[in-house]
Amino acid sequence: MAPRTNGIGVQVEDTKICVVMVGLPARGKSFIAQKAQRYLQWLSIDAQTFNVGNYRRTEAPHPSADFFDLGNAEGEKRRRAAAEAAMHDMLDWFRNGGVIGILDATNSTKERRKWVLDTCTKEGIEVLFVESKCDDEAMIMANIRDVKLTSPDYQGQDPEQAAQDFKNRIQNYEKVYKSLDEDGDENDYTYLKIMDVGSQVIINRIRDYLQSRVVYYLMNLHIRPRSVWLSRHGESLYNLDGRIGGDADLSPRGHQYAQKLPQLVRDSVGEDRPLTVWTSTLKRTISTARFLPENYNQLQWKALDELDAGVCDGMTYQEIKDVYPEDFVQRDEDKYNYRYRGGESYRDVVIRLEPIIMELERSEDIIIVTHQAILRCIYAYFMKKDQSKSPWMNVPLHTLIKLTPRAYGTDEERFSADIPAVSTWRGKGSTAKHENPTPGANI
Amino acid sequence: MAPRTNGIGVQVEDTKICVVMVGLPARGKSFIAQKAQRYLQWLSIDAQTFNVGNYRRTEAPHPSADFFDLGNAEGEKRRRAAAEAAMHDMLDWFRNGGVIGILDATNSTKERRKWVLDTCTKEGIEVLFVESKCDDEAMIMANIRDVKLTSPDYQGQDPEQAAQDFKNRIQNYEKVYKSLDEDGDENDYTYLKIMDVGSQVIINRIRDYLQSRVVYYLMNLHIRPRSVWLSRHGESLYNLDGRIGGDADLSPRGHQYAQKLPQLVRDSVGEDRPLTVWTSTLKRTISTARFLPENYNQLQWKALDELDAGVCDGMTYQEIKDVYPEDFVQRDEDKYNYRYRGGESYRDVVIRLEPIIMELERSEDIIIVTHQAILRCIYAYFMKKDQSKSPWMNVPLHTLIKLTPRAYGTDEERFSADIPAVSTWRGKGSTAKHENPTPGANI
Repeated sequence: MAPRTNGIGVQVEDTKICVVMVGLPARGKSFIAQKAQRYLQWLSIDAQTFNVGNYRRTEAPHPSADFFDLGNAEGEKRRRAAAEAAMHDMLDWFRNGGVIGILDATNSTKERRKWVLDTCTKEGIEVLFVESKCDDEAMIMANIRDVKLTSPDYQGQDPEQAAQDFKNRIQNYEKVYKSLDEDGDENDYTYLKIMDVGSQVIINRIRDYLQSRVVYYLMNLHIRPRSVWLSRHGESLYNLDGRIGGDADLSPRGHQYAQKLPQLVRDSVGEDRPLTVWTSTLKRTISTARFLPENYNQLQWKALDELDAGVCDGMTYQEIKDVYPEDFVQRDEDKYNYRYRGGESYRDVVIRLEPIIMELERSEDIIIVTHQAILRCIYAYFMKKDQSKSPWMNVPLHTLIKLTPRAYGTDEERFSADIPAVSTWRGKGSTAKHENPTPGANI
Repeated sequence: MAPRTNGIGVQVEDTKICVVMVGLPARGKSFIAQKAQRYLQWLSIDAQTFNVGNYRRTEAPHPSADFFDLGNAEGEKRRRAAAEAAMHDMLDWFRNGGVIGILDATNSTKERRKWVLDTCTKEGIEVLFVESKCDDEAMIMANIRDVKLTSPDYQGQDPEQAAQDFKNRIQNYEKVYKSLDEDGDENDYTYLKIMDVGSQVIINRIRDYLQSRVVYYLMNLHIRPRSVWLSRHGESLYNLDGRIGGDADLSPRGHQYAQKLPQLVRDSVGEDRPLTVWTSTLKRTISTARFLPENYNQLQWKALDELDAGVCDGMTYQEIKDVYPEDFVQRDEDKYNYRYRGGESYRDVVIRLEPIIMELERSEDIIIVTHQAILRCIYAYFMKKDQSKSPWMNVPLHTLIKLTPRAYGTDEERFSADIPAVSTWRGKGSTAKHENPTPGANI
């Protein structure tokens, strides 16, 4: 039996990590937690967030700032109970095979952190503290306005009053807040401290591979506004034939799309800012991107090449079914894990796309011109799609997709070039050269 | 024309970075500098170290500690002149197309660092300060004994006396030493501060991709003793036929090698410590590793699969020459850059091996069972081999190579299994099924 590995190819059998968020309210802790969870799940690593606020909320749905005052014994008791309930559920989840649990709470005192550490250590769970520290008043207020006032705590309340209440709540936390290791007596903790949204980071005693991957990912996050544009190459000669793989040229309609792409991009950008263009190393993507403006930097990534179909490269689905009938069935049974003979699976593609995702997180405006399977995987990352379903998604040709990451989730817009193209979507079991996607397949 | 990209696939056209080492003597600055240079050169990024001590040495070959006393005006003047000479040469080198220059010196005062920053900024060169800070007396003394006393400064001197002199030299630096940003007034500098050999790191204002790659690499370095074992798979059925690529089984002699490998490894380890086994996803490496002890963790990496020969997969060199005569010639002309149709070049392989190298740096004892081209690339990294020559190196079958990284360079040992195997080496222009390597091809 092959050893169980995580998405990056490293054994995780025995690793359990609790990522413990630390920081005052409105410092982006939940933003970080949900990004980390999405990234890990995309890599098929079992990850789950436990938000203490949600546990507290079932008991005290609309607390005022007083509730968070240390002097308020009843509030303190209930908040403690919420932390214990979240911890209880998280430990249960770990016992059932969870790999990375994320404890999303302020954890703003040394005592609370020590309690989390001791409780996890007893269960053989490694603890990685992740603190977001920010003193930029404007940034904190923006966060309060954008995120906190839409929280269930303030449902139906006057925004002005709610903001004031939230600021009072922060002040109550500030009274007891100790930044991680600020006195040097938490120096043996494993931690990542992110200051002012990444302008400085401190990394302390990272011990193993999986910890380092999480840390590297989190230190690359930024919150500057930007978008990511995704497009498949224009229709290719192989697409017309219903053949997969290869390195074919564009069809006449594919060339039309290439010519129209600059206008499509300009319309979707809204203002005049240059993008960076990433293509694969294959002719059909380079050709599709060739009319984009001169002042756009262009870059070819081997990692963006289409899923390698191995011995089936250049075949139609009918030919695959004829020559490798068992493979044809196996692939449809588990399309995400099926690896073509001498080629790749979707799971392999996700592994090779991981550095691309890391780069995308670091970067600002990027347009990616790539291939069907690659686009499905990148789209699944941003839109949090289930890996078992993403290989079946319909991604039409001659369509530009614009994704704009927000605090929670990603906005999507589509721009059709209105240039006809064959469908390259294929339903389970089908060997049709071209068929119409079922409605459920549309991403 | 394809844009000029660095080894990881990112444009570097306009990026010039000066990595400025900071720290007291005997803190491993030169160790870090030479590792960074080797890593970058392996990725085909033009990198060069400028060691101020070497410039000073031409003027003052055997200075006593007094020379480094701030009160010693003559010493101060000469040390300043050495820094200026090194800077002068570095700027010349940048003007001729250099990408990452490493300024290896103590740079222990704020004034000196500001001078370096201003001088580089004027030339459009980004500055990344890298400080190694270490207060562990035992570690510093070990460094003095292992490295410093063999320095040209102390040639032919009594070791005891030399060590004392070196400690005095450090004290002279300590008088004026300011750790980076310790007063908060270097907070706008881009820097990486490595404390106690990586137990804590601080990363400040990293601005672009190439900086982040250097930083991520440096924060993964460790100096715990360890070795890396490299082996090709046992002789395969394809090897017997002189065919490349594929996913063939082992030959009978290949199976013999698999059976003997555990003993070969045990003999070379010296003591009883379990290794971690990395193989590719191909049958012949997994099969070769299958008798290694149960307590060795095993891991399969797609990134360790053999160089993809694309349309030539499964062919003999004679067949390649017959079917693709132009490709055959082109590959021999520039084997490092030649990309098989629908396959890979050695350059592509290095890009996909980059995460493997990062993992190797983080890890301790690893045995890698992989393929000829992959082994050549990994070996070239450790042994600092020229990328234009490494694709021509002879790596015999049925031989275990043990590499042990030291402060400067890597020690190598070979363990032959004494099981005959065909040669898979091929000289330029040759289509022989099996031929004997020329003596120069032996790595």
